[in-house]
Order: sequence, then C-alpha cells, then structure tokens
Amino acid sequence: MPLKNTNIVSAAQTKFGVLEGVSMREMFAEAVNKATTDVGVPKKDIQAAFIGSFIPEMLIHQGHTAPLLLDYAGLKGIPATRHEAACASGATALRAGIMAIESGLYDTVLVAGAEKMTSVSTNRATEALAAAADDDFESSMGLTFPGVFAIAAVAHMQKYGTTFEDLAKVAVKAHKNASTNPLAQFQKEISLEKAMTPRFIAWPLRLFDCSPISDGAAALVLTSTEKAKKYTDLAVKIAGTGQASASMNLSDRTQLSSFESSVNASKTAYDMAGLTAKDMDFAIVHDCFTIAEIIASEDIGFFEPGQGAKAVQDGVTALDGDKPINPMGGLKAVGHPVGATGVKQIVVACKELLGEAGPNQVANHNSAVVHNFGGTGATCVVNVLRRADV
Amino acid sequence: MPLKNTNIVSAAQTKFGVLEGVSMREMFAEAVNKATTDVGVPKKDIQAAFIGSFIPEMLIHQGHTAPLLLDYAGLKGIPATRHEAACASGATALRAGIMAIESGLYDTVLVAGAEKMTSVSTNRATEALAAAADDDFESSMGLTFPGVFAIAAVAHMQKYGTTFEDLAKVAVKAHKNASTNPLAQFQKEISLEKAMTPRFIAWPLRLFDCSPISDGAAALVLTSTEKAKKYTDLAVKIAGTGQASASMNLSDRTQLSSFESSVNASKTAYDMAGLTAKDMDFAIVHDCFTIAEIIASEDIGFFEPGQGAKAVQDGVTALDGDKPINPMGGLKAVGHPVGATGVKQIVVACKELLGEAGPNQVANHNSAVVHNFGGTGATCVVNVLRRADV
Repeated sequence: MPLKNTNIVSAAQTKFGVLEGVSMREMFAEAVNKATTDVGVPKKDIQAAFIGSFIPEMLIHQGHTAPLLLDYAGLKGIPATRHEAACASGATALRAGIMAIESGLYDTVLVAGAEKMTSVSTNRATEALAAAADDDFESSMGLTFPGVFAIAAVAHMQKYGTTFEDLAKVAVKAHKNASTNPLAQFQKEISLEKAMTPRFIAWPLRLFDCSPISDGAAALVLTSTEKAKKYTDLAVKIAGTGQASASMNLSDRTQLSSFESSVNASKTAYDMAGLTAKDMDFAIVHDCFTIAEIIASEDIGFFEPGQGAKAVQDGVTALDGDKPINPMGGLKAVGHPVGATGVKQIVVACKELLGEAGPNQVANHNSAVVHNFGGTGATCVVNVLRRADV
Repeated sequence: MPLKNTNIVSAAQTKFGVLEGVSMREMFAEAVNKATTDVGVPKKDIQAAFIGSFIPEMLIHQGHTAPLLLDYAGLKGIPATRHEAACASGATALRAGIMAIESGLYDTVLVAGAEKMTSVSTNRATEALAAAADDDFESSMGLTFPGVFAIAAVAHMQKYGTTFEDLAKVAVKAHKNASTNPLAQFQKEISLEKAMTPRFIAWPLRLFDCSPISDGAAALVLTSTEKAKKYTDLAVKIAGTGQASASMNLSDRTQLSSFESSVNASKTAYDMAGLTAKDMDFAIVHDCFTIAEIIASEDIGFFEPGQGAKAVQDGVTALDGDKPINPMGGLKAVGHPVGATGVKQIVVACKELLGEAGPNQVANHNSAVVHNFGGTGATCVVNVLRRADV
C-alpha cells in the first residue's frame, strides 16, 4: 500500500565543498533557514526534527548534535534526534520523519542532514569514515572505503567486463552535470582523457573515480496532506520507502558485483509505491565512487546486471538520456558531506520533480527513485517520490 | 489522544557492570536473544530494528553500529538504524519504534540499546561523555558531566536548602534496591555514613553521588495490538510519549534547579496518555547523579519544586513508599551504559508493571512514568506506560 500522507513541501541545501570558516552549526542553520522562512514555512509550524549526521564525534569532537544544531537554527525546544547509518544517515532521518507523519504524532517536521569534514586532514577524515565498516575485522586491518569499492570494481570488471573507461565516463558525466550546478563542489567539466590520467587511489579506482571530502547541509520540510495545502499547491509525495541491511563484513557476502541491501530496499520501496523501475523517470543514486553508480543503476532495476556500464557509454544515464542518473552531478562532483548526502539527494529529486532544476532539468519528471547507501552497503535506503497536487 | 497500538510484549537486559572480555556485539546479542527466542518471539517475526547507542565511535572506534549489531544477533537484513541523543539515545530509539508501529509500516519491531564503556580508561570515557555537551563553548573548557550536575546541585541547594545528606540518601536508597537486583553493577547496601564519606568528584557531589561507567545492553519487542495476542495475554502499553529539547549550553538556561526539557516532555507524555503524575504508581527516572533524581522527581510532577529531597528523607520514594522511584536501583547502583540506559529503564518498568520484579516488586503497578535524560538536559524523553490485557 503506497504511503498516503507524507509530502515534501520545501527542500534546500547549502553549497557543498570546502566551506572554510563555516562551522557545522552555521551550515545547518543556513539549510534550515532556506527550507523554512525563505519559502514561507514559519519555523513555529515545525513540531519535531530528525537529523542525519554520520560521525561528528570524530570530525568535530561533538556528539548529541540534534538539539545543538536545532538551537542554532532557531528551533530550540522541539523534539530532535540524530539518526546514524554511516553515509545513509540522511535517508534514515528521512524515514524517521516519514514514520512521524504517517503515525499521526506530528503534522509538520524537519528532516535535515549535515557534516563538517574539512576541519581535519583528509587522512583523519578517511580514518573516521572507516568507522562505517567493521572495526574488529575489516577497517582496523587497513581496509578504508576506496579499498572497499575497489574490490567491488574488480568484481564487476571480472564478471561483466566493465572497463576503466566505463568508470571514467561516469566521472565525466558527473562533472558535466555539476558544471551548471552552482551548489556543486566541482563546477567544471573534465575530458575523458583527464578522468583517466591521475594516480590510482586504490586500483582500479583513480582520483576521479572517488567523491571528495566535503562540508555541507540540507533540509526538508515534511507535512501531512492536510497541512501541505497551507504551503503549496504542488508537492512531492513519498510514495514508497524501503530500507535493508546486509552483513557489515564483505567476507560474509555471496557476491561483490551487486549489493543485496540495494536490491532489497528498492524492491520494498517500489512495492510500497505500487510502481516499478520502468515507471521511474530518473534516479538519484549514491555514487560515492564511479563503480557505485554503475552497480546502483543495476541494483535499482534501471538496467540488467552487467548492463550499467553500457548504459553510461550509450548516454542513457546522461541528463538528456532516457534514464537520467544524478542529473545535478551526484556525490562525485557535487560533494559528499556524509550525513547531509541522503537529504541532499532528496532536495535534488524535488527540484527536478517540480521542474525547478534550470539547466539541469530532466525532460520527464513525474516520478523518481532515490538511493542512499551506507558503509559497505550494510545499510541501504531507497525512496520513491512522485510529483503531486496536494 | 493516547497511543493505541504500541505494546511491549518482551523486555530483557544483560547484567550491567564491568563486563570484561564481553564485546558490544556480544552484549547486544545476549539482550536480543533474551528478548526474542527466550520468551517465544521468533526472530523471523522482527521486521525492523531501532537501536540506541551514544558514542561507540569514541569508546570502541565503531560507527554504523545498527547493522553490525543486528548481524551478530541473528537478524541480518532487516532495516536497522542507530538513534543518538547522548544518554537519552535509548529512549529516542524507543520513540522511533513507537512511530514505526503507529504508522502501520511495521507490526513487530526490535528496540534495543547498548554501550561498551569499560574498554577505555575512566578518563577517556569521561572525555567521550563530554561530547554530549557543546564542545565549542562548554566541554572543551573542562566542564565534564560531574561538573554540570554539581552546578545543578548547588543551584538546588541554594534555592531549596537541599543538603549533602539529602543527596546521600538517594544513593543509600539506590544501593538498597540494587542489593536484590542480580543484574545490578553494585549489589550491596551502603550506610548513610559511607555515602557521605568519600572524596568529592565535583563539589558538592561525592563519589557515591555519581553513577558508574558501565557496559550493558537491553532490548524490547514492540508489536501492534493485533499481533500482540500472538505472544501474550498481558502486555505493557505505551499510552503517551513526549520528547523535548533545551539549549545545549547551561549559560542559555533561565534556571538550573529544574530542567525545562523534563517538564515539557512529561507534560506531552501525560497529555497524550490522558493521565497525570497522580495517576502514576511509580517512576523510573534518570539518576545519573543523586541530584538528578531529586530534580527529576519534581520535574515529572511527583513532588512540588523543592519538595523532592523531603520525599527521599520521608521514604516516599523508597521501594515500599507511596511513590517509589527507581525500585530496582537506578543508574546510580545498577550502572549506566549510556546507550542502553533508556531501554533498560523500560525493561525495569515492564518487570514492575507485570508483577515480575521479585524482591523489588512495588505494591501498586498499573501505570508508570519513565524519564530518560540526555546530556545537560538538552534532550529529555518521557514515556507513560500501562499494564493492559491485549
């Protein structure tokens, strides 16, 4: 049965990138201000807040972030919880917001995500991110995330013949789309040659196959259908939501060229919405590495297993293709402040669905699937969104 | 309107204390096994998990704990999110579970909490706990939690004449109750003289005014009313739930002898349940320090402001008093593995409400209020529970 009552009536993000001198609380307040007062949802209407943040403890030595951030955003007092599932933290906050509305406990809630990553060195940030994998058995042995996705890339190459050039083409597409996105960390195109030139970070992944370390925040206002009318005539409905887990350890997986949590979360979300991948006009997927986008495009059912790379080569996933993926530039070129990403993906989907994406607008924009991935895929959240009159 | 559909059909905890050689995942699995297979809720019935954990990143260098813990508890694959609000993390996980059931998205879910604190030194643990306060303005200046509650104690003493002996009597009661609780960290009584003898940790709080550093886990199974019949005839219903925030910084508060988040969360929970403090047979409150129990007993409406200490002196809050508080021994004597505490408090309330508390059984046990507090009170969660036929 599709979800009936959850509408996104406002969505905003800060610029993503190295936001020097801007603290986590300041970024958060900026995103919340954009998503509330700037678009006419008074802060006093917000009844509760659900906040995604992955690892502020290790990045800025701060826990208990939810009430702290709220206070600085002018929302002191309301219930506020932080939700964490590594890089899928933002989408788990969204799911908590969905359940809050669908339960009838609240009419209007804030869902937001934030991460401040660039105040520590890249090495320290990479080490903090490694806490998303099993510390006893994997990350403490030196398996950081470029290594994890390098293993997945090798598996996909071996099984399906995916090439270095296929990977690079994902990066070229991401940078092309981000070149017209003023909120992106990298607003410039790169040539295929350039994408294939730099040093290897973890073979077969080169520098341009990896998303960057970033700062940023994003925020959404969710309301019940009854309350949505107060703010807008056209909203984005969450029609289906799915979340699935998998073993934390790669060694416990049966395969590495596909992620079972992505497949299972997608199935749940499509089934709940009563829709299929064929019904989706475009997708936002978690392209923390180029190979992750190719695998995700298969796992969400856009392409058969092993056909994701061909779709990139044929331009099917380009902004003007039949099945656009990451039309604003994705994590790869827009940046990946981990706790913010799952919320920012929804912000992008909303802009596209409402026809507000400017030079990055996709042609067909009635429905979208949004895929947010945590750690080595031990968590995946998938949401199906539809543009709808309220 | 009272919540209608959320029933606790199973509740269990591990022993709390210094669980040497027992990892977080092992404690978690023990609590989940007790709360599922041991009482006849098959694991296959569990559809999603909501897990409270405060600061495993700094204590055991592990983030993304939810799918990791689930995997080790034999529940791999289902949606699992970690919820964090400092020492109120457990209760925020419970609230997510409540909304999951009330929304109709799930029928049967696991709510659990866990923390492994003793694998680092006490100093390191105290420093990790300090991440629950504002790192920019308070904790980085050296204001750790004994200091925070020392300030509250001074404020309460100054305003109401609360004494060292009042504080010590809370500790004496806690140890008395815990002396017959086989799952408590400290299973022995202490005399008033002993409670008043040790060194000051942060004046006016002495060693026995402080809860210990502990390991432990706790778990609950929540079901819809329809599904509850499958497991039991008598359940614990969650009739009302409230959560409130306050400023992270003490400097922004108007007073320190009461916590506004406790007052506000209590009001929301009572109103939702259609009940008042007078209707509550007993309370479980967050006694991280002795002064915290006295203030909480006032903030939840059991006693007028300033009357909490007298209630302790008069034995009103004793196991055989008119308004028992923490009948199993509280955080003070049972231990305080932070992420587990909010869930363990509900486990204790369930045992008492169902008449299963043995030597610690309170006389009247139809309804209870449970108060879980995060950081300096920047978060508070209050739930109102009732024993009910299903």
